[in-house]
Amino acid sequence: MADFDLFNPINHEIKIVEKRLLQSITTDLPMMDDAAKHLLRAGGKRLRPAFALLSAKIFSENVDKIIPMAIALELMHMGTLVHDDVIDNSTLRRGRETVKTGWGNRVSIYAGNYVFARSLSLIAPYQRSDVIEILADASMHICEGEIRQMISCFDVKQGLKDYLRRIERKTALLISVSCQLGAMLNGASNSEIIALKQYGYYLGMAFQVTDDILDFVADETVLGKPVGSDIRQGVITLPAIYALRFHPRREELAGFMSSSELSHRYADEIIDIILDSNGIDYSTEVSCKFVKQAQNQLQILPNVPVRDCLFEIAAFITGREY
Amino acid sequence: MADFDLFNPINHEIKIVEKRLLQSITTDLPMMDDAAKHLLRAGGKRLRPAFALLSAKIFSENVDKIIPMAIALELMHMGTLVHDDVIDNSTLRRGRETVKTGWGNRVSIYAGNYVFARSLSLIAPYQRSDVIEILADASMHICEGEIRQMISCFDVKQGLKDYLRRIERKTALLISVSCQLGAMLNGASNSEIIALKQYGYYLGMAFQVTDDILDFVADETVLGKPVGSDIRQGVITLPAIYALRFHPRREELAGFMSSSELSHRYADEIIDIILDSNGIDYSTEVSCKFVKQAQNQLQILPNVPVRDCLFEIAAFITGREY
Repeated sequence: MADFDLFNPINHEIKIVEKRLLQSITTDLPMMDDAAKHLLRAGGKRLRPAFALLSAKIFSENVDKIIPMAIALELMHMGTLVHDDVIDNSTLRRGRETVKTGWGNRVSIYAGNYVFARSLSLIAPYQRSDVIEILADASMHICEGEIRQMISCFDVKQGLKDYLRRIERKTALLISVSCQLGAMLNGASNSEIIALKQYGYYLGMAFQVTDDILDFVADETVLGKPVGSDIRQGVITLPAIYALRFHPRREELAGFMSSSELSHRYADEIIDIILDSNGIDYSTEVSCKFVKQAQNQLQILPNVPVRDCLFEIAAFITGREY
Repeated sequence: MADFDLFNPINHEIKIVEKRLLQSITTDLPMMDDAAKHLLRAGGKRLRPAFALLSAKIFSENVDKIIPMAIALELMHMGTLVHDDVIDNSTLRRGRETVKTGWGNRVSIYAGNYVFARSLSLIAPYQRSDVIEILADASMHICEGEIRQMISCFDVKQGLKDYLRRIERKTALLISVSCQLGAMLNGASNSEIIALKQYGYYLGMAFQVTDDILDFVADETVLGKPVGSDIRQGVITLPAIYALRFHPRREELAGFMSSSELSHRYADEIIDIILDSNGIDYSTEVSCKFVKQAQNQLQILPNVPVRDCLFEIAAFITGREY
């Protein structure tokens, strides 16, 4: 992200966030320390801190007071990631779990809880109960979203609405909250806060739809995981939902996608059918619509250079070159 | 607990807590709802809400404003319980995890996170950043404690200090915080808050030592789990630490207790050696000392009937007849 010009206005602050992130999770317990730092390194783009800082910078050049919040948002995100890992692991290695995996799972659960609690201690000094309520509410919805994703695995009858609700909770919500809180804590008016909250929401939706497209079309070296990993895990995303509805072989496809065993056995065939449908194009259109909705929110904001950055970042999302 | 006179002063409030606990975790997601309600029913004694309410009642008859906090404390406790379950299960059933267990683990992790987030939303309206900081800090220490317990499994070289630090985080901390917050939110002075915080700490320590004794001597029907379950799980508690240090067969004992396999194979022999040492008597003495320290803290508090209840509850702990 360091090379990505659009984040230039907050490059300095992001460096501080990065440094303090590492400090914030330092404990005298070596195992916890290792797990948390491993998590940190795996984290990557620091999108949530970046959006909180950029949103704040629209209203004042000085965004120093947003830094603890930016760190807290990244810690919360990390907490959900580490808990996701526990779960994925236990599914993937079912029946051949090693002792090491067992220990790893334990540490992961507590490391997740630990970073979440740590994020709270960073938020407390703001003395803003409205902020705590927003984050508590988001956390509850994110948990619900995780369970919804779990329940909907291999459910070939789910529709667009189920998908959108799921990605809202999985991704859009915390990005939306990041923008909202950045604005709230740096002097934005109510309507400006709502605009940035909505911006984050639509941007998060576009981001996740794009991510789901990439799972079908991107190179494995770009993704960092094999193509079609959603399919194998039973996560039915937008391109698949489209193909399940409109492809001539949709009934056969539904059969292939209805269980873990079949999804693994017919993964290549499933991917071929989905690529042969208009699912990718349709999903790209959906993503672009979200980007436009995100950009529309920015109109009522002060006409400062950072606003243009947010506009361009939204456009960039569908390209995902960073 | 309803029949237990010592909790009489807050019986009415505890009933409200019980009712609202159920309401507070109601969601429109059936699976989450089931998991959370299962947790609630398994919960039992509501000690943390009771201590928060009793501590508060020393300073004013009206403890209505403590009720949301009491619910939040129980939710936090439930959150740690459900995460513990995930972990124990995955160890116990290693290698023969069923799909159902897999689903159960997932739901458990998210249900734990959900109730934790829910507790936050109950605490936010107090608009007290000091309260949030206390709870965040306690949560972090509890996570550290869980990891310490994990690391120390089958470690026959651990000493009294390791054990005390572990049970402090596992049990004493949240009971201490419950007393502290009950006092803080109902008009106690600083020295009174500290006294109740300390009371809760020593009481929690006595409580856990007693619990650890019961794992050796209580009837299975009382415990709700087989005698010696700590031993089998590698959790080395005070009676064992004593026997490992002083019993003539201590080297043999250390051998038996040094791995999961041996602990299971020699469980009866391990228990016999520990019972043959002075470990139970020694542990009972330690517990009694903690009870006295707890009671000593109460001296500076207003001389009201609720104070006498707290005094007697501490005495009762070592008997554990409720």
